[in-house]
This record gives sequence, structure tokens and C-alpha cells, in this order.
Amino acid sequence: SLSDALNIGSRDPVYEVVEVSSKGTVSTRKVHRRHLLKSSGLRPRDIRSVDPSLWLTNTMPSLLVRENAILLNLGSLRAIAMQDSVFIFNYNRRGGKAFIDDLLPRLNPKSMIGGGVVMPFELEVVEAALHSRIQHFEHRLMDLDPHVQDLLKVLPNRLTAAILEQLRICKQTLVELGSKAGALKQMLLDILEDSQEIRRLCIVGRNCILGRNSDVECTVPLEKQIAEEEEEEIEMLLENYLHRCESCHNQAERLLDSAREMEDSIAVNLSSRRLQVSRFELLLQVGTFCLAVGALVSGIFGMNLRSYLEEHVFAFWLTTGGIIFGAIVAFFLTYSYLRAKKIL
Amino acid sequence: SLSDALNIGSRDPVYEVVEVSSKGTVSTRKVHRRHLLKSSGLRPRDIRSVDPSLWLTNTMPSLLVRENAILLNLGSLRAIAMQDSVFIFNYNRRGGKAFIDDLLPRLNPKSMIGGGVVMPFELEVVEAALHSRIQHFEHRLMDLDPHVQDLLKVLPNRLTAAILEQLRICKQTLVELGSKAGALKQMLLDILEDSQEIRRLCIVGRNCILGRNSDVECTVPLEKQIAEEEEEEIEMLLENYLHRCESCHNQAERLLDSAREMEDSIAVNLSSRRLQVSRFELLLQVGTFCLAVGALVSGIFGMNLRSYLEEHVFAFWLTTGGIIFGAIVAFFLTYSYLRAKKIL
Amino acid sequence: SLSDALNIGSRDPVYEVVEVSSKGTVSTRKVHRRHLLKSSGLRPRDIRSVDPSLWLTNTMPSLLVRENAILLNLGSLRAIAMQDSVFIFNYNRRGGKAFIDDLLPRLNPKSMIGGGVVMPFELEVVEAALHSRIQHFEHRLMDLDPHVQDLLKVLPNRLTAAILEQLRICKQTLVELGSKAGALKQMLLDILEDSQEIRRLCIVGRNCILGRNSDVECTVPLEKQIAEEEEEEIEMLLENYLHRCESCHNQAERLLDSAREMEDSIAVNLSSRRLQVSRFELLLQVGTFCLAVGALVSGIFGMNLRSYLEEHVFAFWLTTGGIIFGAIVAFFLTYSYLRAKKIL
Amino acid sequence: SLSDALNIGSRDPVYEVVEVSSKGTVSTRKVHRRHLLKSSGLRPRDIRSVDPSLWLTNTMPSLLVRENAILLNLGSLRAIAMQDSVFIFNYNRRGGKAFIDDLLPRLNPKSMIGGGVVMPFELEVVEAALHSRIQHFEHRLMDLDPHVQDLLKVLPNRLTAAILEQLRICKQTLVELGSKAGALKQMLLDILEDSQEIRRLCIVGRNCILGRNSDVECTVPLEKQIAEEEEEEIEMLLENYLHRCESCHNQAERLLDSAREMEDSIAVNLSSRRLQVSRFELLLQVGTFCLAVGALVSGIFGMNLRSYLEEHVFAFWLTTGGIIFGAIVAFFLTYSYLRAKKIL
Amino acid sequence: SLSDALNIGSRDPVYEVVEVSSKGTVSTRKVHRRHLLKSSGLRPRDIRSVDPSLWLTNTMPSLLVRENAILLNLGSLRAIAMQDSVFIFNYNRRGGKAFIDDLLPRLNPKSMIGGGVVMPFELEVVEAALHSRIQHFEHRLMDLDPHVQDLLKVLPNRLTAAILEQLRICKQTLVELGSKAGALKQMLLDILEDSQEIRRLCIVGRNCILGRNSDVECTVPLEKQIAEEEEEEIEMLLENYLHRCESCHNQAERLLDSAREMEDSIAVNLSSRRLQVSRFELLLQVGTFCLAVGALVSGIFGMNLRSYLEEHVFAFWLTTGGIIFGAIVAFFLTYSYLRAKKIL
Repeated sequence: SLSDALNIGSRDPVYEVVEVSSKGTVSTRKVHRRHLLKSSGLRPRDIRSVDPSLWLTNTMPSLLVRENAILLNLGSLRAIAMQDSVFIFNYNRRGGKAFIDDLLPRLNPKSMIGGGVVMPFELEVVEAALHSRIQHFEHRLMDLDPHVQDLLKVLPNRLTAAILEQLRICKQTLVELGSKAGALKQMLLDILEDSQEIRRLCIVGRNCILGRNSDVECTVPLEKQIAEEEEEEIEMLLENYLHRCESCHNQAERLLDSAREMEDSIAVNLSSRRLQVSRFELLLQVGTFCLAVGALVSGIFGMNLRSYLEEHVFAFWLTTGGIIFGAIVAFFLTYSYLRAKKIL
Repeated sequence: SLSDALNIGSRDPVYEVVEVSSKGTVSTRKVHRRHLLKSSGLRPRDIRSVDPSLWLTNTMPSLLVRENAILLNLGSLRAIAMQDSVFIFNYNRRGGKAFIDDLLPRLNPKSMIGGGVVMPFELEVVEAALHSRIQHFEHRLMDLDPHVQDLLKVLPNRLTAAILEQLRICKQTLVELGSKAGALKQMLLDILEDSQEIRRLCIVGRNCILGRNSDVECTVPLEKQIAEEEEEEIEMLLENYLHRCESCHNQAERLLDSAREMEDSIAVNLSSRRLQVSRFELLLQVGTFCLAVGALVSGIFGMNLRSYLEEHVFAFWLTTGGIIFGAIVAFFLTYSYLRAKKIL
Repeated sequence: SLSDALNIGSRDPVYEVVEVSSKGTVSTRKVHRRHLLKSSGLRPRDIRSVDPSLWLTNTMPSLLVRENAILLNLGSLRAIAMQDSVFIFNYNRRGGKAFIDDLLPRLNPKSMIGGGVVMPFELEVVEAALHSRIQHFEHRLMDLDPHVQDLLKVLPNRLTAAILEQLRICKQTLVELGSKAGALKQMLLDILEDSQEIRRLCIVGRNCILGRNSDVECTVPLEKQIAEEEEEEIEMLLENYLHRCESCHNQAERLLDSAREMEDSIAVNLSSRRLQVSRFELLLQVGTFCLAVGALVSGIFGMNLRSYLEEHVFAFWLTTGGIIFGAIVAFFLTYSYLRAKKIL
Repeated sequence: SLSDALNIGSRDPVYEVVEVSSKGTVSTRKVHRRHLLKSSGLRPRDIRSVDPSLWLTNTMPSLLVRENAILLNLGSLRAIAMQDSVFIFNYNRRGGKAFIDDLLPRLNPKSMIGGGVVMPFELEVVEAALHSRIQHFEHRLMDLDPHVQDLLKVLPNRLTAAILEQLRICKQTLVELGSKAGALKQMLLDILEDSQEIRRLCIVGRNCILGRNSDVECTVPLEKQIAEEEEEEIEMLLENYLHRCESCHNQAERLLDSAREMEDSIAVNLSSRRLQVSRFELLLQVGTFCLAVGALVSGIFGMNLRSYLEEHVFAFWLTTGGIIFGAIVAFFLTYSYLRAKKIL
Repeated sequence: SLSDALNIGSRDPVYEVVEVSSKGTVSTRKVHRRHLLKSSGLRPRDIRSVDPSLWLTNTMPSLLVRENAILLNLGSLRAIAMQDSVFIFNYNRRGGKAFIDDLLPRLNPKSMIGGGVVMPFELEVVEAALHSRIQHFEHRLMDLDPHVQDLLKVLPNRLTAAILEQLRICKQTLVELGSKAGALKQMLLDILEDSQEIRRLCIVGRNCILGRNSDVECTVPLEKQIAEEEEEEIEMLLENYLHRCESCHNQAERLLDSAREMEDSIAVNLSSRRLQVSRFELLLQVGTFCLAVGALVSGIFGMNLRSYLEEHVFAFWLTTGGIIFGAIVAFFLTYSYLRAKKIL
């Protein structure tokens, strides 16, 4: 606690946030860090996880439940949900916008179909956040899947640079997507395994305390009952999102595995084709070498120097025949040598 | 709950399903989502896991047990089992057909051999679904196994493009098969580890409730006893399918590992053969270079320019000898240099 | 139960088995599946795990303890151990033969040294099966280990195709061996972790029942005591085989890792040698190119066309000098360019 | 205990340490090992983990809580925290300096904002150590992240040696960073899972004992209460640092994965481009071979030997036409052969 | 038990051992297996784990605690510790020698500094064994670490075969070291997790029994107290060695990871350099091809055949110009084609 004060307290940063009230009104505000801490009862180090200025080092998704507030950090969405309003930090980034689009209809009483039990505002916020995040994963995956499948079908026959580049980009996107979905899945698993955390989620903003032996103690007995009923509801809700998140994660991993295997196979394929090209090149070089020997002989006889063979009849035909015959014999000798050595 | 309504409730999709009643009659029906929810007592978000329109994002197999229905999502089979009938969603896909073929004989009382205890309809459905799914894996594996074994035997000696392509396709199939069998195995493990889930499976459609401390409480005492006896039966049944699924998974992984190792070895093999080809090419190029020096000399003497050597006796033989001797000496000098440097 | 009947019951396969009685007599028999089920009290689906006709899909080792029989599936050994005899299914395969060779001496009372407590027949069968299986692993490993060590020593200096092929074959064998030892290890671990399973193993063929809270209840109090004493004995026996199996598994993995690292290093080694060859080739091609320029010049002057330079004194020497000087200068310019660009 | 004495006791090394007292005074001292053991009540083998002379073999971070001292080994920071002072061993290395810079302001009562509860000195030391270490990770990651992102964007188009070298260096740094962050994360997890360890951390330097059943027993009842309150505080503090450490670890792994995938893709990319180059080379060599045949023919007719064709009219044109036509035909025959064989 | 007798009992091997008594006397002895079993109260199958003749199949380190003896198998050290003496099996191998060197000073009462509690002889043996083994790991790591660091610094710039070979050897050593340290770590973890095993270690050679509910029961009450005090001491001792062993393991893995990443990077580096070489080769071949066309033309005009152009003024200059111009134009056309196709 002291340390936080020392590190950050000297400066009092101002966050530009969008505030969505529980009645659905949206407004842009500037909040002083100091003020935020006071009003929400949070500790300085809690803020770290949603502070947009630290976005490089708090990339792990987190859902922190504190006494009067829930801190949400889901990728590009950073928000603090309180009893009556939610503060969204980097609301201009995709995550923030998708979240607001998802949250607003939930707050509109008209859109309720049937008189379902209304969830407390904080939980609506949490669900909207999870929903918008996972839907984002699903949409990206739905875009990627057919693209990757196409690539896998096309690739073995069309190994152009452009298609390899597309495969590379798909792989990078899948690595990123799989890693994000995996982190979110881990976060949901951690919450579900920690029954205290879920209970804390139930009593956020209520006059209840979580006792030593993780029993809920409320001032109003009715509230305790509601909290207990809500617990199961929240668990099923989180399990549902966990399952969707796992689906995304697995699908991304599966596509990535396929793409990796494909790349490995392509590498071997290219290697085998290069070997074929090299072997034909070698064949040609054997031929060229033999021709070069012949050319040297003919060049020697073409020198303006007297060999005193010039006048002999048939010298031309003998030499020519010798050159051609020698080149062909040399070629086939080398060729059969290379075959025997299994180089060709 | 509210959120589901908001997202999906505005439209009321109609599902085309095949209904198989517990008496074995098969009929095609159109079911309104709204109607389905009402009749089965399911929540909107439960339907997600079997909704065929979302097949890209709910690829993870799941078996959800609700109060009056069991939701099955096993790859291409999506079904809802209720007390008297089962709805199969994408019945035209392979999974749906195999399931119906597997289920129908079970419902035919004539085919019963010996008066074994008849399982409740829902459990017959679950078993038929698991059985048809795992048999599908086993059949694919039985097709693949000899093919891969053949490839592994043939490959080191016949590295043609066609055979490499076959290896690639086998690997892709194995990746997919292994991933699907692994997901199914995980699902079965999760159910087996969660004794509550198995108990819920026992009391589906019975007048029993699963109490707080996961004890079964029934209105009819006899039913409780049957449920308890069934519990063990279900566990053994699931364990049996788990074992078969694990067998498939392991076998697929083993074949995939073998294929991967083979590909790695082929890559090194090709690399070493390319080196051999390159080294012989180098040898030929050294030869060609030496011949080219000789050819240049002979070419120079072949120019129509006066060197005043033309008339010297033996100039021809001296030059010719010098060219040939020089080329051979240069070749062997370079050759021994390359040997010393271990390049050749 | 019903399902099994439906799937398999219509046909009644006949298994050819070797029966070894507890007195050591060996006989070949044909057993009807139906008869086998009746006499052993097994369920149809239990038989699956030892059915030799399904050997492709039940490759996972398993040791199933049922009321009156123990079903063994250890690779190529499939057997059912009952109170007085053991049925071995595919007795012609290596696993079955080794098992019989291991089992028979145990049944011969003469070979007992000191009056050690004689284990029940079923447990002797289980131990003989585990022993013959693990000894098989150990023998294969003892054959492979020196071979792999030799290869690893020889390889960096002798990268011939034959040696690479040997490395490949070793790797494939190690993958297979490691995977099989790993599966057996997992099976033993699973049994050791499940105290119920061990207790069931103790009371096989005795008039004892495993109660709800996994207490042993026997009709004869003495039997209970013996069973309890046996429990610890069995645990230590299984732990011993587990340790040997783990040793095999680890050793196989270690050798495989070494072989993989070796292959990776060879790939880089070959790559670096190919680069060296390529660089020398490039050097020669630069030389050949320069000679070709010279040859072209000399060829031009060798044309039977008049350049009117023919008669000029020193034209020959000037041109010759120019050709040689130009070729050398061009060579060194290119050479230093390539050095500067770090291509050579 | 005896062994330690035997191994190290004969020599009495002197450590040069920086001592920071709880009042904030910094002084350099030389401490005899023997004296240190006496004053701190530590055992010889405890010292091992912070002994700077063993820095190669105690690279694993550790936080050992002993009765009167806490031993800290966090990478390049080795320190012993006691009730009134902390000894920093290799204070000249980066870790030691960053730690002192982080610790000193915490000890300055003026810098306290608001009258927060002051933590005991040892805990301030632990927090300062963790904080300085994790901040070091975060800073390195913040430096690396944009650099790697830039590389990943630039790479596919600019495959120069310099950029590949940069990628290599980034990868090495990420491997190191990921491994260090992972080890620290594991250490924090181990502490958090071990409730005894945390309790021991609470009562360091107090007159309390940790009883058999891990209950805290204090001589002064008030101290027990404080210790219990502190426990939760420490847990939250450690969880906070764990979360930051996990963030670093995951981010480093993610970047490393991206870089690895990139390198794999580059390898395939390079392979495919080499194939293209080779194929064009092959094309040229086919051409050169055909020209060489022609050149040989023309060379043969250029020999100073009589072919008695010299005088024939059109012999020149016939031969020339034959050479050119033959070369072109040979080229296209070979070319179509290679296309049919899919080599070109 | 029976099985052991059957397999090994028929032969009675004689082991050559070094016996170190608790008073520090060292003597070489030959022990009959049968005698050893009798005197130590061990079972035949226990001996397996230390039998030097089986060193290929019992490579996993193990520490077996039996009633009157502790069996130690730590790599090349195989020993049986009894109440008054320890038998060392393959005492000529490095492990055995280091162990004796480590053990002897501990038995010398003079070397005790301060009157520390003397540990029982068996525990001194266990500690000496662990200490000598882990120190061996640490020394090898201290030798390897700077060597690998040097290689990693030198490598990117000096890719010679000798340095690659050194990297390969380092990797092989690290694989082996990491695997051995990992196995030892696992063994220590297993012991630490099994509180029964530690208790058994405490009461070795005492008149105590480990009861059913793993309580220690001694005939002399004092011994029970001592055993309980020792328990904590042993746990801390094992934890200390575990920590050192983990340090070694992690450091070896980290170095291996760095070396692997380095090798991957080198492969890409080599690949990119080969591409550069290939591209320059291609450039030269384009040039050579153009020159060859020119040379063919000049060769054609050099034939001793009449073209009737011989006498034309300017024919020479026209042809020469045509050849040179044509070659240059062809070169640049091909060059720009290759650039456009991104091959060059």
C-alpha cells in the first residue's frame, strides 16, 4: 500500500473515461486518479490492472472483485464496474466500443422479453464484457477458418510467394488469437475454481461480508438468500462463457497445428523439388563439361599455329569424330558413375 | 438469461430437425426455437451448444445435462434428447445419419437378446451417440493405419512428390482425428470426474432432485434405488467409451509422431543428397573453369591477328601441350585445395 | 449392455485360444464367445479389450479386474486370467509366446526355492504378463542403446546415406518403444492410484465383496486378512514394475532426444557445408564469366571477317594482353564487391 | 549441518556487503561468514542460496524465510533481510542498485502520504526487492515489444542478414526474459500455495512460533492479531506481483512464439525463393547447353583442318542454320520435358 | 517374490564391493548375492535397482528405504547403506569415487566443528551420496556455461564447421545433463511428497515400526522423539538438495533452449545467405548465357566456310557491334524480367 503511494502517488494522473450509468446514460468524463480511489474504495495497486497507460505490461486479462467495484481488463477493454455506473477507460479502442454496444440494450427495460429476473447492474456489466470479448474472438475465427481451409487446399499445388505470405499472416493471427483466448480461458477457469471469488462477485455492492470460513453473512437475511441463488446462476453463466472460450481456443490451436504441419510438409516438398532441379542441373553440367572438352580440342586445332596436320586428308573427319565420340562416351561414363553412386 | 433474450430473442429461428421417438418412429419436423425452449425447459444459452447455425464456434464436443433434456454436441451430430423423443439437428451430415442407424435397432424390442435391463430412452440415445461417434473414429483410424505404415516403409527409397503429398494428407487427417478424439476424451474425463454430472444423468426425466450436498432425493423411494444402481452402470459405460476414445487418440498421436519423425528424417536425407549433388557440381565447375582457361588461350591463338609465332615449328605442339598440362595441373591443385578445406 | 448385444451378439465368433491351467498343462482350444461370457461372468463389452480381431483399435494396454476374471491386454499379449486357467488369445504372436515361457516355470512347484508364500494363480499370471512385457522392452532397449550411441559418435564425420538411414530407423523404433512403455507406465500408475482397483485385484476369485466405502467384506474372516496382507505385496510388486517401466520409458525418451538433437545439428551442418560449396561455386562462376568475356573477344577476332587490324604489328599482343588483364581485373573487382557485400 | 561445516567451514570467507538499516542509512561493510551465521541465526546451507560466489549454480530465484531473517535471491540481487537491516551482497550489479533505489524512499517517513499502516521493515525489503525485479522485467519488455513488432512487420519484405540478426538477438533476449520471469512466477506461486510459508513471513522477527498444526502462537496476544491481519495483506501483495510477473511471462512467451513462427515462415519463404532461383538457373543451363552444342559444331568447322566443305556454296549458311535451328529445337524439347516432369 | 527367485536365484552372482564402515575403514570385498540378501533382509527384487550388471535398464535414480537398509542408485553410484557399513558396487566409476571422497571426512570425528548433532550413519551416507552427485552436476554446468556463452557470442559471425561441431557437442551434453538432473529432481520430489517414505528414512535401523496410519511406534519412547525431530531435519536437507538440483536442471534447460534457438536462427541465416549466393550465381549465369550467344555467333563466323561476307567492309565491325549490343540488351532484358518476377 505504501509502495503504491510512493511510486505513483506523487503525480495524480487524470483518466479520460466514458461513464455508463445503470440507467443507460452515456457521458464522457475526466476522472482524477485520487478521486477515483476515494469514490470506489479501491487501492492504488488495484488500478494498475486497468490503467490504460500501462497497456503493455498488463496484457493478461483479469477480473478483480473488490468490495464496491469490479475491475475488468479484457484485452482492449478496461473498465471499472461500480454499483450505479461503469467507467470505461480506453473507450475509443475496439474493445470499449463493442462493450458499450453490447451493454446499452441490456439496460433498456423495454427490450426485456418476459419478466426475467433482472441481474444486478455489475453482473450485467461483467456479462456484457465477457460476451463482447468472446464474440469478438468468434467473429475473427469465423473470418479466419474458411480462409485457412482454402489455403490448405490450394497450397500444395500453388506454392507462390503471395500464398505463402498469406499462410504466414494467418499463422501470426492464429498465434495471437489462440494466446488471447487461452489467457481468457485461464482467467475464467481460475475464477470458477475459486468459490470465494464467485461469492464475492455475488455480494458486490450488497451489505454482506464474506466470513472467515467463506460463508456469506448479510445484514438483511433476504439478501443472503438472493446471493446464494445468484451464485449458481453466475457459475452457469461463467461456465457457458468458458465453454465458448475453450471452443475458440481449441479451434485456433487446431487451425494453427494444421498450418504448421502444412508448412513443415511444404518445406520437405520444396526440398525434394530443389533436389530434382539440382539433379537435372548436374546432368546438364556433365553434358556441358563434355562439350567444353570437345570445344577445347576444336579450339586448339583452330589456333593460327602450324600443326602440320592441316594438309592431311581425313584429319578433319578423324578429329571431329574423335571429339563427338569422346564427348558422348565421357558423358555416359560420368552418368553411369553418378547413377551407381546414387547421386543422380 | 436476459442477455440471451436480447441477442437472439428478437428473431425466432426455425430448426429443421429429425425426431426419433422412443418407439422408433422417425419423422422430419420444423421446430420453432421459442417452442423448443418452452417444451424442453431449456434456457436460450443452452441451445447455443447444439445450434447448427453456429457450427464454426461450438466445435468442442459437449454433453449438457439439464432437468428434462440432454444436449449432445459430438462433432457433426447435434441432438437434444428428451424423455420421449430425440431431436437431431443436422441430420443430413454424416454424424446424424450414423447416429440414427445406431439408435434405431436399440429401440426395436425384438432385437433384444435375453431380457437385459432396458436402459431409459435418454441413456440409449447418449450411448448410441457416443458409440456412433467413436466407431467413426475407429473406422477412420483402421483405414489410415495401414496406409501410413505402407508410406513409412516405402518412403525412404521413393521420395517422389506424389508420395510426399500422400504423407502430407495423412498427417493433416491425423492432426484432425487426434484433435477430435482428444476433445471427446477430455469431455468424457470431465464428466467422469464430476460425480454430480453423472447423478444428474441418472435422474434425467425422473421425479428426483439433486440436493445441496449432491445427494439424490426422489419422490418415489424406488426411483432413488434404481438411480443409484444406474449410476455405476453409467460410469462403467462412460469408462468403456473413454478407454476406446483414448485408444484412438493415442494411436493417432503415435502415427502422427512417426510421420513427423519420418518427415524430419526425409528433410535431412534430402539435404545430404543435395550436398552430394552440389559437391559433384562443384567438381565439374572446377573442371569447366580449367577448360575455359585453356579455351581462352586457344581462342587467343585463333584470332586473325599476327603473333609472329605462326611460323615457328613446334609452337603448335608447345602451346597445345601447355594448355592441356596447365588445365590438368590447375584442376588437381584446386581439387586438393578443396579437399584440404573439406569443401569437397 | 444392450448395445453390446445388438452390435456383436448376432454373430457368435469363435476364438482360438491357448489355455494354461493352474497346474501347468497347456492346450489349444476353440472357445465360443457366448460360452466364454457365460463361464467367466464377463460382460460383452469387457471382451472388447482383449478381442484379437480388434487389435488396431484396442492398442492401449489395459488390465481390467472383474469379479471372476482379470482381462490383460499388453501389446501383442491378450489374455483372460480366471481362477484355474488362463486363456491366451493371439498366442502365436511374440507377446503370447514370451508370456507362456515366463508363466510355466512359475507353476512348477519344484522350481520354488525356499517355501515362499505362493501367490494365487491369477496374480502369478498378472506378474508373468508384466514381467515378460517389460523384459521385452528392456531387451529391445539393450539392443538399441549401443547402436544409437555408436551412431551418435560416428555421425558428425560420416554423413553417408546409409548411416542417416540407420539413424532414421533407430528413431522410428525409439518412438514406438517410448510410446508403448509410456502407455504401460500410465496404466500401472492408474492402477496404483486407484486403491479400489488393487483391492479388487486382491479379492479376485475369493468370496469377498468390495463394499460401498471400498472396504473388503469376506464371508470367511481369514480370507479378509490374507487379502489385506496381499494388498501391500501387490502394491510393491506393481511399484517395482512401474519403476522398471519408467526406466525404459525415460531411457527411450533420452535416446530419442539425443537422436533428434543430432538430426537438427546435422541439418545445420549440411546447410553450412552447402553454403561453403555454393560460395566456391560462385567464385568459379565469377572466374568463368570473366573468361567467357575474354573468349568472346578472342572469338570476335577469330571471325573470318576483315577488321583491318590483321596487319598491325602488336595488335595481337595488345589484344591478348587486354583480354588477360581485363579478365583478371574484372574477376578481382567482382570478388571484392562480393566480399564487401558479405556474399563470399 | 555437519556436512556444511565440513565443506565450507574450514575457510571463513569474507563477504563485502552493503548494509541498509531500517532508518535508511547505507554503509559498506565486510562481514565474516562465521559472524553472519552467528548474528542471523542462519544455518550454513541457507547462505548458499545468496552466496554471490556461487552465482552460476544458484540461479533459481528463491525467498527463504528463517526465524530471524529472510534470504532473497532474485537474479542479480542477493540479500539477507533482518529485523533492523538488510545486507545486499553483489550491490554493484544492476539488481542490487535498483533494489537500493527502490528501498530507500520507502524508509523515508516524510514520503508517506496519508497515515497508512507502516509495514515491518523486512516486508518493506521483500516488497522493494520484488518490485524492483518485476519493474526491471517490465522495462525490458517495454523496450523489446515495439522492436519485435517492427521486425515482424518489416521482415517478410526485407530479409537482409542484419535484420535476421536482430530477430535472433530479440529471440535470445526473449528466451532469457521468459525463463527468468517464469522462474520468478513459479517461486511466487510456490509461496502462495504454501500457507505455512506466508505465516512464517508474518511472524519473522516477532516473538511468535508456528505450531505443529501451523497455528501461530505468540507470547503477546496483540502480536498474534496483527500477524493474522498482515497475512491477508501479504497474500494480496504477493498475488499482485504474481499477476504482474505472469503478465510479463505470457507477453514474453507470446512474442517469442510470434518470432518463432516468423522464423519458420521465413525458412519456407527462403526455400521457395531458392527453388525459383534454381529453376531459372536450370532454364539458363538448358540454354547454355544448347549453345555449347552449337559452339562445338562451329568450333569444329573453325579448325584449321580441311573438311573439303570450305568451297561449297551455302555450306556456311546451311551449317549456321542447322546450328541455330538445332539449338532452339533442343532447348524447347528439353524445356517441355522438364515441364512435363514438373521440374520446371 | 517367487518370480525373483525363479529368474535370478538359480545363479548366485558374486558382487565385488567396497565396504566403508561407520568408523571410516575402507575395504574391498566380494559378497555373494545370497549372503547379501540374508544379512540385509532385502528382497531379491530390491537388489535389481543397484545391481551393476543391469546398468542399462536401471538408469532411473532411486532411493529405496527398506527396514534395515537404504538402497541408493544415483547414476554411476550404486550403494547399499546399512546400520554399520555401506557397500558401494561399481566403486571404480566416477560416481563411486566421488562418493567415497565425500563420505570419509564426514566419518572423521576430528573434522567436526562445534558439537553439532551427529546424524545417524545411514543419513550421512544418503547426504554424502546426494551431495557428491549434485556437486558433480554443478561442476559440469560450471564448465559448460561459459563455453556455451562464448559459442553463442561467437557463432553468428563465425559459422565454421568446427564451431558448429562444438555447439553440437555442448547440446548433446546439455541434453544428457538436463535429463539426469531432471530425473534426480523428480526422485527428490517424489520422496518429499511421500511423508511415509521420510518417516521410514527416520526409523531405518531403529526399533520402530511404521503403523497403519503412518504413525511411528517405537519400543523406546525416546527414539520416537528423536525420530520426529529428525524428520524435519531430513525434510529441510532434502529440500535443500532439491533446490540445488532444480537450479541445475533449469540452468541446463535454459542453456539448451538458447542453443536450440541459436541453431534455428543459424539455419535461417544460412538459408538466407545461400539465397544471396544463388541470386548472384543466377546473375552470372544470365551474363554467361548472353556471352555464349555472342560466342556462338562469333564462332559461326569463325568457321572455315564461306559466307561471302568476308570481303565486305564493315562486316566485321557490324557483326562485332551486333554481338556486343545484343548480349548487353539480352542481359538487361532478362535482368529486368527477373526483378519484376522478384526472383532477383
